[in-house]
Amino acid sequence: MTSEPFDAVSVIRTKRDRRRIPDPEIDWVIDAYTRGVVADEQMSALAMAILLNGMERDELARWTAAMINSGQRLDLSAVARPTTDKHSTGGVGDKITLPLAPLVAACGAAVPQLSGRGLGHTGGTLDKLEAIPGWRAQLSNDEFLAQLNSVGAVICAAGDELAPADRKLYALRDVTATVEAIPLIASSIMSKKIAEGAQSLVLDVKVGSGAFMKTIEDATELAQTMVELGTAHGTKTVALLTEMSTPLGLTAGNGLEVTESIEVLAGGGPADVVELTVALAREMLAGVGLDSVDPAEVLAGGRAMDVWRGMIRAQGGDPEAALPVARHKHVVTAAASGTLTRLDAYAVGVAAWRLGAGRARKEDPVSAGAGVVLLVKPGATVSAGQPLLELHSDDEARFGRAEEALAGAIDIGAAAVGAAPLIIKRVE
Amino acid sequence: MTSEPFDAVSVIRTKRDRRRIPDPEIDWVIDAYTRGVVADEQMSALAMAILLNGMERDELARWTAAMINSGQRLDLSAVARPTTDKHSTGGVGDKITLPLAPLVAACGAAVPQLSGRGLGHTGGTLDKLEAIPGWRAQLSNDEFLAQLNSVGAVICAAGDELAPADRKLYALRDVTATVEAIPLIASSIMSKKIAEGAQSLVLDVKVGSGAFMKTIEDATELAQTMVELGTAHGTKTVALLTEMSTPLGLTAGNGLEVTESIEVLAGGGPADVVELTVALAREMLAGVGLDSVDPAEVLAGGRAMDVWRGMIRAQGGDPEAALPVARHKHVVTAAASGTLTRLDAYAVGVAAWRLGAGRARKEDPVSAGAGVVLLVKPGATVSAGQPLLELHSDDEARFGRAEEALAGAIDIGAAAVGAAPLIIKRVE
Repeated sequence: MTSEPFDAVSVIRTKRDRRRIPDPEIDWVIDAYTRGVVADEQMSALAMAILLNGMERDELARWTAAMINSGQRLDLSAVARPTTDKHSTGGVGDKITLPLAPLVAACGAAVPQLSGRGLGHTGGTLDKLEAIPGWRAQLSNDEFLAQLNSVGAVICAAGDELAPADRKLYALRDVTATVEAIPLIASSIMSKKIAEGAQSLVLDVKVGSGAFMKTIEDATELAQTMVELGTAHGTKTVALLTEMSTPLGLTAGNGLEVTESIEVLAGGGPADVVELTVALAREMLAGVGLDSVDPAEVLAGGRAMDVWRGMIRAQGGDPEAALPVARHKHVVTAAASGTLTRLDAYAVGVAAWRLGAGRARKEDPVSAGAGVVLLVKPGATVSAGQPLLELHSDDEARFGRAEEALAGAIDIGAAAVGAAPLIIKRVE
Repeated sequence: MTSEPFDAVSVIRTKRDRRRIPDPEIDWVIDAYTRGVVADEQMSALAMAILLNGMERDELARWTAAMINSGQRLDLSAVARPTTDKHSTGGVGDKITLPLAPLVAACGAAVPQLSGRGLGHTGGTLDKLEAIPGWRAQLSNDEFLAQLNSVGAVICAAGDELAPADRKLYALRDVTATVEAIPLIASSIMSKKIAEGAQSLVLDVKVGSGAFMKTIEDATELAQTMVELGTAHGTKTVALLTEMSTPLGLTAGNGLEVTESIEVLAGGGPADVVELTVALAREMLAGVGLDSVDPAEVLAGGRAMDVWRGMIRAQGGDPEAALPVARHKHVVTAAASGTLTRLDAYAVGVAAWRLGAGRARKEDPVSAGAGVVLLVKPGATVSAGQPLLELHSDDEARFGRAEEALAGAIDIGAAAVGAAPLIIKRVE
């Protein structure tokens, strides 16, 4: 420790006392944490101090830069097409990446998406794709670049060389109640996305019960913070704030969401999934100067489905294979007649998780068939006894706890409700 | 972890969100931390949340009770005399325990003092006594009780069974910048002192540059918090707030402070050391109903010196042996003529530490002879070039860094200054 230029206690004390951490100390603390010189118990105290006392803008930019510099920034210069990516802060039934990546590739851009797995009530893109027989998430750097050039879209697991400080810090935040800090969320997302090397980035910042951010104010702050960080690092970044108080589409679960995504690629699917997919595609294309291409038209023309098939095949998957289905189903019915005024996203997410779609710990397996199917969406008129939800699980014993999660999550009222807009606002 | 009734993340989240931790969760988190089920990185995040968000009074009382219950509470029922103890929050030149314990024993009470070692710029009582050839800090429980009955005073190291949660938490706070939290300081001190089992307790809460608490407001809050905690646990507790902007007495250093303490026991010594010793003795005696005894008279009569000799001998020390002296001395002189208006306690503490009297890490040894001797105190008239301080060290190379610590710590002005009262206020 004697050759270290700073010490962790001084850095923690600075943030604890609401002062800005000087740049060289930010660089040092992230690097020293990655090297194991700053201990987990020191970083968790610092994370809690950041959560409670915040960070200044330029302080956070430096923190994010230090996280990027803890690993390598991908070099996409060998990719012929313009590169653009999307990140969602996570919601229930959020399968948008699945139709979106091939759609944007079909429009002429390249989509290099390094993705993660689900933890808790929100699903993970890799878990969903792994429902497809044969598909594999791990690619070498060479495979990744080759597929990006040939197919135009890659969704795969991030390698260890990408922002390793974030990997370590995220695991620590998870066990120390320091996940919910805007500076830490923003720097975690943006360090990985900036290191990924795409020229433009569109952020889908979810708001509502099923999202991390429960209010438009918090979501706006997170979106602005991330847009600033992206811009400061030369990545053209915009954010859409989108509604997440009820699930997106009609499914929450791995295989179920793949099926729904294929419906969208085939020109059908739920209106909200199509709307958001097209809106995000427009933003991604605009970010790389491809404004003239209309993604709605490309989607209707079936070219996105062709890219999807190529993308799945390139990673060992069989796009024609039947997807796994759960062994048992259980129907949840309406308790009264009237208008379905609320179907809570968080509750549906927890129910899907308990049915086997998600994991409680990183090392847990997930069930490909488990999940929840929505038979109606808020705004629909229902009669008492009518089926509202279908629960899918490989284990009948799980239905009880899933139903408990749904207690109080479904409101049926007399008055009709106006539909909330899906896209709340745009932040750039 | 599955059989645990609570989880650490929920407990941390409660405090992070400024809510009160429910009693069963307080009991659990302290116990689970002692058992190693709650990890260091979780406890440090919780400590930072407590530092920044505080604790309610009854919450802190429960926290302290849980710390006491992590180990054993000493049983002093076999001690014939009433038992009383003192704790100082730590200052520079604070050797008061050395003359105080034998004085109070000479007045008829029993003083069971479990003490610690110094870390940083404040000295530790055990380090001072270990300057005496042969003296040992470790006693068995039986030796401790026997000495308390026969001699009336024991100063020794606390055993592992006393508030083990505090031992673990203190080491953690030290490396995570969570030492300076009033609830954590108060519960740390009081859990050990209450577990020690004395009937009454007098707290010497230091205020000023050489103390933890820099302002009277903070010191008052700490004193009130500790008095409440003691009272809630059935220990009669009062606190004196005392001045610590300049060192206490004329010495800072282990052997040097033993010598000064013996001068006090012999009826001499610096006026401030005598004043504080007698004032604290009065409070300790009043706490156990021995108000009728005048400690000033007992001190003058030489009986406290007899107890001192008995106390040192009982722990293997030779009270007649010459104390170690440092191999080198270096004089610091006045830069100007005038009145010495300030001699900063913190700077003198750091100088003594750098000279070898203190340790930077728990495992470091200390030098028995090293330290600082004050040749004048604030208020004195000095002439340019007159010796002000004498630095003592076994290593000449240390004088330079000690002098650096003293830069800006000595003010000589034109105007005479009124002496600040040593005892600022009493809190009960």
